[in-house]
Amino acid sequence: MSKKNRLIYLPLGGAGEIGMNAYVYGYGPAENERYILIDLGVTFPDMDGTPGVDLIFADIEWLEARADRLEAIFITHAHEDHVGALGHLWHRLKAPVYARAFTGNIAARKMEEQGADPDALKVVLPFPETVKAGPFTVSFVPVSHSIPESSALVIDTPAGRIVHTGDFKLDESPVVGEPFDPALWQQIGDEGVKVLVSDSTNVFSPNPGRSEATVGPAIHQLVERSKGMMVATTFASNIARVKTLAEAGHRAGRSIVLLGRAMRRMIEAGVESGVLRDFPKTVSPEDAKDIPRENLMLIVTGSQGERRAASAQLARGKYMGMELKEGDSFLFSSKTIPGNERGVLRIVNAFSEKGVEVIDDAADLYHVSGHANRPDLKRLHQILRPQMVIPMHGEHRHLRAHVALAAESDIPGLIAPNGTMVDLTGGVPKVTDHVETGRTYLDGAVQIGALDGVVRDRIRLALNGLVVVTQIIDEDGEPLGEPWAELMGLPETGRSKAPLAEVLEEDLTQFVNRADAKTLRDDDTLTDALRRVARKTAMDEIGKKPEVIVVISRLS
Amino acid sequence: MSKKNRLIYLPLGGAGEIGMNAYVYGYGPAENERYILIDLGVTFPDMDGTPGVDLIFADIEWLEARADRLEAIFITHAHEDHVGALGHLWHRLKAPVYARAFTGNIAARKMEEQGADPDALKVVLPFPETVKAGPFTVSFVPVSHSIPESSALVIDTPAGRIVHTGDFKLDESPVVGEPFDPALWQQIGDEGVKVLVSDSTNVFSPNPGRSEATVGPAIHQLVERSKGMMVATTFASNIARVKTLAEAGHRAGRSIVLLGRAMRRMIEAGVESGVLRDFPKTVSPEDAKDIPRENLMLIVTGSQGERRAASAQLARGKYMGMELKEGDSFLFSSKTIPGNERGVLRIVNAFSEKGVEVIDDAADLYHVSGHANRPDLKRLHQILRPQMVIPMHGEHRHLRAHVALAAESDIPGLIAPNGTMVDLTGGVPKVTDHVETGRTYLDGAVQIGALDGVVRDRIRLALNGLVVVTQIIDEDGEPLGEPWAELMGLPETGRSKAPLAEVLEEDLTQFVNRADAKTLRDDDTLTDALRRVARKTAMDEIGKKPEVIVVISRLS
Repeated sequence: MSKKNRLIYLPLGGAGEIGMNAYVYGYGPAENERYILIDLGVTFPDMDGTPGVDLIFADIEWLEARADRLEAIFITHAHEDHVGALGHLWHRLKAPVYARAFTGNIAARKMEEQGADPDALKVVLPFPETVKAGPFTVSFVPVSHSIPESSALVIDTPAGRIVHTGDFKLDESPVVGEPFDPALWQQIGDEGVKVLVSDSTNVFSPNPGRSEATVGPAIHQLVERSKGMMVATTFASNIARVKTLAEAGHRAGRSIVLLGRAMRRMIEAGVESGVLRDFPKTVSPEDAKDIPRENLMLIVTGSQGERRAASAQLARGKYMGMELKEGDSFLFSSKTIPGNERGVLRIVNAFSEKGVEVIDDAADLYHVSGHANRPDLKRLHQILRPQMVIPMHGEHRHLRAHVALAAESDIPGLIAPNGTMVDLTGGVPKVTDHVETGRTYLDGAVQIGALDGVVRDRIRLALNGLVVVTQIIDEDGEPLGEPWAELMGLPETGRSKAPLAEVLEEDLTQFVNRADAKTLRDDDTLTDALRRVARKTAMDEIGKKPEVIVVISRLS
Repeated sequence: MSKKNRLIYLPLGGAGEIGMNAYVYGYGPAENERYILIDLGVTFPDMDGTPGVDLIFADIEWLEARADRLEAIFITHAHEDHVGALGHLWHRLKAPVYARAFTGNIAARKMEEQGADPDALKVVLPFPETVKAGPFTVSFVPVSHSIPESSALVIDTPAGRIVHTGDFKLDESPVVGEPFDPALWQQIGDEGVKVLVSDSTNVFSPNPGRSEATVGPAIHQLVERSKGMMVATTFASNIARVKTLAEAGHRAGRSIVLLGRAMRRMIEAGVESGVLRDFPKTVSPEDAKDIPRENLMLIVTGSQGERRAASAQLARGKYMGMELKEGDSFLFSSKTIPGNERGVLRIVNAFSEKGVEVIDDAADLYHVSGHANRPDLKRLHQILRPQMVIPMHGEHRHLRAHVALAAESDIPGLIAPNGTMVDLTGGVPKVTDHVETGRTYLDGAVQIGALDGVVRDRIRLALNGLVVVTQIIDEDGEPLGEPWAELMGLPETGRSKAPLAEVLEEDLTQFVNRADAKTLRDDDTLTDALRRVARKTAMDEIGKKPEVIVVISRLS
């Protein structure tokens, strides 16, 4: 029976978290399936858990070991959490990559930057066009989201049809890109859907999602009544929003300035790929200097408080020659992602000090989400009437709530976090295996495993501070000179008011002078002993036990 | 004219931030005033900016230098951000401390723990009782908040009356403690208020605040319909809420278990000080084992996701013999403070994995804030009709919005962040000086300045990792042996695939072998040179520049 073909689903990233999307489907005899991979995204590090790390990827070791059976990689849209790891990981998979034009434009840059083969990238047309990838026939069906050309994938297999939504919302007037087309989705459902694998991000939002088109009038009113310079920030990739902002400024008689590299790059990608048309004319920051501030509208990067983006730089002072003053206005046309509150509030307070009026989305006027809310998810369940629902892209709590939501329409679901291999062949989803998954950190130029201990050591250094102890042992195995202590990240003095380094050196010297030959002979024994003395003395002096590095130099 | 008496206000903490409250008032000849201090609180460290730090205090150096003219310290209420630094800083001020009974109970423990003189603490009765402190006559006027016996201070001075609100809300049915008494406040206003110094925390909340009494029925309903064990978390100091939760459990026929040290300590303090009466009988976790889980209600610490508190421990597994299972319910009767989202969501997801139903306050049913909202603040402005409003306890954006709110009632205000000395003597507030203020970190047993560089070094270690380079120089100034490199918090291998430590040692050796006598002679020159080599090699190998500690041992 092991030769029977089966259809499997295996999330490597994105299921049990928001970010780092990477989903595998397989079809064929067990342990010998042919695979496709949907998305290859990143998640972002933070000081709490991943200090010094640049980016976080899904651990793709399982798939890399089977890369010879990987037919293709499909990218649903160009957000970092769906495409950000492609350049960094492609050389470990080397499969062809399929994407639509705008997504492809962004993906190509990422592959080129990391030296991946640009010919591997194939730009494809949307539904009803299809891509054949081994036993899979895949079509990109336009959905709305907060970036152009986001697509659900309709994946036909010998075992039935999978609909993999990617990130989506149901928007009948999305400003940029194709509107939600209920008839098309009805048709996809009518043809029979075995499994719906669906975005879960907004399952806790109780009201139907609002259309991108609803924010335009409110933003226009706001810009109209603003007196000084108007500045607005949003995600650069939300080209519909950037266009709405620019049009509001333009209609109010303001010249538009785009600030921040990502902002200019995304608009370029939009124009190059043809998704963006009729964007108002912009002026350079240089030329803007000759325009009265009340006739300017800046659209800038950094809506999440990122320290190096334009918003944060403007909050600190000048950026590209532009500077905010009392009477200017600053609009967050965005929502703060949990975890980014401190950075965003730092900016708000800095503007408050300058006398700039800050407008956020507390009143729900200037931003709409790009994800389907609870009633929208239910609507899709009911349009497609799949045999089963597997929630993806969400923390565990989202997946759980989404399964419960599917149950309301009598559709069986399954919570399948990263590493859960699900057999979709039968009438209900069945967990068939658990695969070791995890996270890979990009640290400078190196990929390291999350459990390698590198980051754990950094956190220890940050929490505990450091003592470096050095001791020379001469040719006869006797201490030569006294031990030295160097400190980093520790107070200079403690309870005794004497310099901590000196107190440490005194206690270490006393120890070394009394140590027997056996202790002095063995590096490990001596190292442990010196570390213990240093930690005890530090505890007595400053009330904490630092990390201790001991270096013993033996003359020979 | 310099001998003329003046009335001044000087926030040392809490103005321009939420937390770390510490406000000075002075009266007398300029530079020779007599002072009182209101509150002495802490703020909490985080990994982003203050790794390894235990607590953060206001820098009280200015006041310490004038401690001989400090008449008294008044504590408005027992929250950590108002009283948490008292034990740690009292010995630098040594003034008598005044507080009401419940606050005094908590304050006394804090002073004792840190070896401060317990006789300095005087427990006083509320308004109309007064305390005479030099030129100030101070009375504790009961206000509602999320802790018992919170008080505004009515401070009469030769220059007029100050009302310092502390943290407050207007609650006519606060469950525990005195209700808001409009007539009393009317009377205080009728007697003439020169300055209102007021809490600004909730100035952005547009609707009138809801009473503590409104959450009881919703919580009772929730507990009634829960099937398994019921667990609820809130701030332990919110004794009214703990009582409401316990009563809801008790009415639903459940035995009450208090979990977490703070929870038991606060209830004790409530009983000892007489503010808490008729609390339902509790059972110990030990005895709870014999009670069916559907007859239990646990009230636990850790509503902010603190890793060591009961909520987080229950999320990870057993705590005090109790464990949550599928079918149990967990209620956050609390709001997540910005910055704590990650810790709270970690708990929610862990419970989701166990199949525990988690209820938060998304529906605004199970929690009310302890602070006055925008309309409540305005109501107080209009009841008291002060000559001026100085907003306190808020970030800069809160202070700004609060000044604007006062302007709606034609009351002049002033944004006075920490360190702004304000002369209140005249008809309008006037900035008269800027005092150097800042933050003091409690790090283990040591108080260090925020700008001492200790924490900056720890952050660098965490972001960049560490290389320790050691080199021995012999009696003739020649290198003895080769340089060693020890790594911490760095990947083991980089681009060349050879061990990073070895690559570093090779390059360092090459450098040392070529170094001229002048370089080898001077420790600073040699240290700088070795650091440069190590950083360059690391950059080539791993794409980042680590921190480098160089230890040179000279034989003599």
